[in-house]
Amino acid sequence: MSFNHFDASGNAIMVDVSEKVPTLRTAIAGAVLSLKPETVQAIVSGRVAKGDVLGVARIAGIAGAKKTPELIPLSHPLALHHVSIEFEVDEQKGTIAVLATVRAFERTGVEMEAMAAATVAALTVYDMCKGSDKGIVISEVKLHYKEGGKSGVFKREA
Amino acid sequence: MSFNHFDASGNAIMVDVSEKVPTLRTAIAGAVLSLKPETVQAIVSGRVAKGDVLGVARIAGIAGAKKTPELIPLSHPLALHHVSIEFEVDEQKGTIAVLATVRAFERTGVEMEAMAAATVAALTVYDMCKGSDKGIVISEVKLHYKEGGKSGVFKREA
Amino acid sequence: MSFNHFDASGNAIMVDVSEKVPTLRTAIAGAVLSLKPETVQAIVSGRVAKGDVLGVARIAGIAGAKKTPELIPLSHPLALHHVSIEFEVDEQKGTIAVLATVRAFERTGVEMEAMAAATVAALTVYDMCKGSDKGIVISEVKLHYKEGGKSGVFKREA
Amino acid sequence: MSFNHFDASGNAIMVDVSEKVPTLRTAIAGAVLSLKPETVQAIVSGRVAKGDVLGVARIAGIAGAKKTPELIPLSHPLALHHVSIEFEVDEQKGTIAVLATVRAFERTGVEMEAMAAATVAALTVYDMCKGSDKGIVISEVKLHYKEGGKSGVFKREA
Amino acid sequence: MSFNHFDASGNAIMVDVSEKVPTLRTAIAGAVLSLKPETVQAIVSGRVAKGDVLGVARIAGIAGAKKTPELIPLSHPLALHHVSIEFEVDEQKGTIAVLATVRAFERTGVEMEAMAAATVAALTVYDMCKGSDKGIVISEVKLHYKEGGKSGVFKREA
Amino acid sequence: MSFNHFDASGNAIMVDVSEKVPTLRTAIAGAVLSLKPETVQAIVSGRVAKGDVLGVARIAGIAGAKKTPELIPLSHPLALHHVSIEFEVDEQKGTIAVLATVRAFERTGVEMEAMAAATVAALTVYDMCKGSDKGIVISEVKLHYKEGGKSGVFKREA
Repeated sequence: MSFNHFDASGNAIMVDVSEKVPTLRTAIAGAVLSLKPETVQAIVSGRVAKGDVLGVARIAGIAGAKKTPELIPLSHPLALHHVSIEFEVDEQKGTIAVLATVRAFERTGVEMEAMAAATVAALTVYDMCKGSDKGIVISEVKLHYKEGGKSGVFKREA
Repeated sequence: MSFNHFDASGNAIMVDVSEKVPTLRTAIAGAVLSLKPETVQAIVSGRVAKGDVLGVARIAGIAGAKKTPELIPLSHPLALHHVSIEFEVDEQKGTIAVLATVRAFERTGVEMEAMAAATVAALTVYDMCKGSDKGIVISEVKLHYKEGGKSGVFKREA
Repeated sequence: MSFNHFDASGNAIMVDVSEKVPTLRTAIAGAVLSLKPETVQAIVSGRVAKGDVLGVARIAGIAGAKKTPELIPLSHPLALHHVSIEFEVDEQKGTIAVLATVRAFERTGVEMEAMAAATVAALTVYDMCKGSDKGIVISEVKLHYKEGGKSGVFKREA
Repeated sequence: MSFNHFDASGNAIMVDVSEKVPTLRTAIAGAVLSLKPETVQAIVSGRVAKGDVLGVARIAGIAGAKKTPELIPLSHPLALHHVSIEFEVDEQKGTIAVLATVRAFERTGVEMEAMAAATVAALTVYDMCKGSDKGIVISEVKLHYKEGGKSGVFKREA
Repeated sequence: MSFNHFDASGNAIMVDVSEKVPTLRTAIAGAVLSLKPETVQAIVSGRVAKGDVLGVARIAGIAGAKKTPELIPLSHPLALHHVSIEFEVDEQKGTIAVLATVRAFERTGVEMEAMAAATVAALTVYDMCKGSDKGIVISEVKLHYKEGGKSGVFKREA
Repeated sequence: MSFNHFDASGNAIMVDVSEKVPTLRTAIAGAVLSLKPETVQAIVSGRVAKGDVLGVARIAGIAGAKKTPELIPLSHPLALHHVSIEFEVDEQKGTIAVLATVRAFERTGVEMEAMAAATVAALTVYDMCKGSDKGIVISEVKLHYKEGGKSGVFKREA
C-alpha cells in the first residue's frame, strides 16, 4: 500500500490535480458529542435566554470549513460553494450529533472540508460546556457521504 | 445550569479574564483513529521509504494548537510555551492514539489548544490515508489532564 | 503635526513599546447601521424562527477583534482578555447601534481592537440583510471610551 | 421578509451557489473619514517627508478585501481578480473619502469584499491619526455600485 | 520603466486580470542554504533517529505557498493545483538547495507562490539549525523556470 | 550534534520555554536584492509619481514579522513590541539591502521574526519588479545581530 500524498521518494507533496476536470463535489461528515444529559438539556432549554451554544458552534463549523487549507498541510485551497451544519440532539442519551455538508465545483473532493467543519463545530460546543462538564467526549468523527469525481458515490453503511 | 461564555442576557462573549493571575497551565488531550490494520502497518513500515504520515500529522497538530483562537470563536489568544504530539500505534487493532500536550503561563487554561492539536493531527492522518481506507473513524477526542489555575488538577479516570 | 507610526525619515514602523509598562486597558467603540425599518423588524421578530442575524454578527465581531493585528498593518499583536458586543435596536428609526468593549493588560491601547470588532459586526449585519435592503449605510464608527495607559481616560461627549 | 443566509429552520448557512453560472462581477463601496482639518493637511503635505498615511491604508484595504472570507462568517471564498482603493481628500472640510473597487469572475457578488476593503482602509487611516486626533469618525460606509449576476446593475443615487 | 502594480497615478493596485484567459501555469523557484558541513551531516545522518529537519521544512514550504496572498500585498488569491519541494544536499560544501514547484490553472502566474514556498522552506531549516549554527546564510533565492500565459517560457541560464 | 526542535525520540516539538524568564530581545536580520541598475533607478526616481515600491515592501515586511508563528512550524507565538524595516539602495550596483529590526520582551528570541520580515519585504520588492526584470536574485539572507536571553549578544562579523 502506498499513500498518494507522497512522491516516489517518500516526500510529502500537494498532489497535482491540474489535469483533472472540475466536477460538482459533495461531502457529508459527522461527529458526535457525549455530554451529561443535564448539559444537553441546558443547551436546548436555554437557547434563547441563556445563550445559543449550537448557533455559535454552527458559525465556527462554517468558518472551520473555510480554514481547511491552513489546517491540513497537503490539502488544496478550494472555492467552497456551500457549507451547512446540522445538529441532532438527544436529551435522554446526552448526545449531540453534528452533520456538516460541503459542496464545490472542483478538481478534488471536499471530504476534508466537511470533516473540518464537523470537528470544529464539535470542539466549539465542547469549549462552551467544559466549565460544567469536564467529561465530554467527541467520537464518531467520520465521512458519511461523498459524491462527484472519478471514484463516484461513497455512502457509509448505517 | 448556565454557560460562562454568555452574559446575563444570553449574549456570547469572550469572558473577561483580566483580573485573573497568570499561572503555569498544562493540558493533555487525545484522539484515537481506527483504521484498517493494513493501513496502520503501511504507515509504520513505510515511514522512511514511502512517506512519514505521522511526521506530517505532528506538524499539523502543533500548527493547529497555534490556530485555536481562530477556530474557537470565544477563546482567548494565548502565548503558548510548549506543544508536543505523541502517537501510540497498535498495528494489531488498527488504531493510532494521538496525545497532545500544551503548556503556557496564562490567565486561562490551554485545554482547547490541546484539543485542537489532537484533533487536527488526527484529521491530517485521515487526509493522507482516506484514498485507500474510506472507513476511518476518529473517536475518544477528550481531555486527559489539566493543571494550573483555580480549579486545580483534572485527571480523567482510565 | 507628525504621526508616531512613522520614523524621522517618514518610514512606517511598528512603534517600539518595549519600554512601556503594561497596564489594564479598556476601549469601547461603536458603529450604527441605518436600514429600512421593516428590515430591523424582521431581524428582531425573526430571531428564533428565521435566523439570529445579531447572534452571527456578534461572533463575527469578537473574531474581528482577534484579527486586528492582521488587518491594521502597524498594530501590535495583543493578548486580549475580554471582548463583548452589544446591539441597541431602534425599530422605529430603523437603526442598529453596535457597541464593542475590549480589555487587555498590555503596553499599548486596545482602541483598534474595539474599532475592528464594531466594524466587522456591522459589516456582518450588512452582509445578511443586503439581499433585501441594498441601501444600508454604516456610520458613526468611532471611539466612545478609552482607559489605561499614560494618556488617561478618554470619554466622547454625547 | 426572510434572510437568505438562513435555512428554513432559521439555521445560518453558507448559501449554495454551486448551480449559479460564473459571471464578471464588479462592486464599488465607500467610506468617509471626518478628521480635524489640520490632520488632513498634515497627511497631504507630509506624504513624502513625514510618512505616507494613505499609501499604508491602501495596502491595508487591498489585504482587507482578501481577508473577507475570514471576516464575514457566511461569505464564500472568492478568487479576486482586481482590487483598487482611491482616496478623495478635502482639506477644507477635513474629510477623506475612500472608494474601493473589486472585480471577480464568480458565482456570487463581490460587495462584501469592496465593503471590507473600504472599511479596513478607513480604519487604518484612523489608526495612524488617532494619536493626535481622538475625535475621528468614519461614516457613509455603503455600496455605491454593483454589476454582474442575475440582479443586474445597482447604482446608488447621489 | 514603470511598474504594473501601480496605476497611472502611482497608486498600488491588485492588477485587473479578469479579462485574461486561464491557462496552465508552472513555476519553479529555488533557494540555497549555506551551513557548517557538520550541520548538514547531522541533518542527513540523523533524519530517522534525531529528527527529520527537511521533512518539517517541506511541510512549511507547501503551507508557505498557500499563504502567498497573505504575504505579498498585491498578489492575487490563486487555487493552487500542485506544490512540491525538493532538497539537494551537498555535505562536503555544506549546502542545501531548495527547489519548489507550483502549478495552477489560472489567469496569472504562480512565480510568487514558488518563491514563497522555497523561501519559507529555507527559513524553516534555518530555524531548526540556528541553535548550533548561527552563521547560516540563505542565498540564490530566484526563479528557475516559468511556463504558461502570454509571456511564454522563462528558463534561467545555469 | 542534535537539534533542540526535536525530542529524544526525534519527534518535532515546540520547545518548552515556560521555565525561562522573559527578557528584552532584539534581533536584526537582512536580505539583499540584486536587480538591473535601471530597475533600481526606476524604484528610486519614481517613488512619488510612479509608485512607492519600497513603501509597499516595508508594510509587507512588518506584516510578515507578525505572521512568523504561522510560517515557521515550531516557532512560538510572540507578542512583538517593535518592527522596523530599512532599505539601503545602491543604484550603481543595482542592489537593495533590506534590514529588519524586531524587539519583544519574551522567553525566547525574535530571530525568526526578523528573518521573516526581511525575507517577505524582499519577496515583495521582487513581486513588483518581476514584470520587467526576471533575473532578480535575493541573497545574503542572514542574522546580523541578536541581543537578550542567556546566550547573550551575537554580532555577525562584517
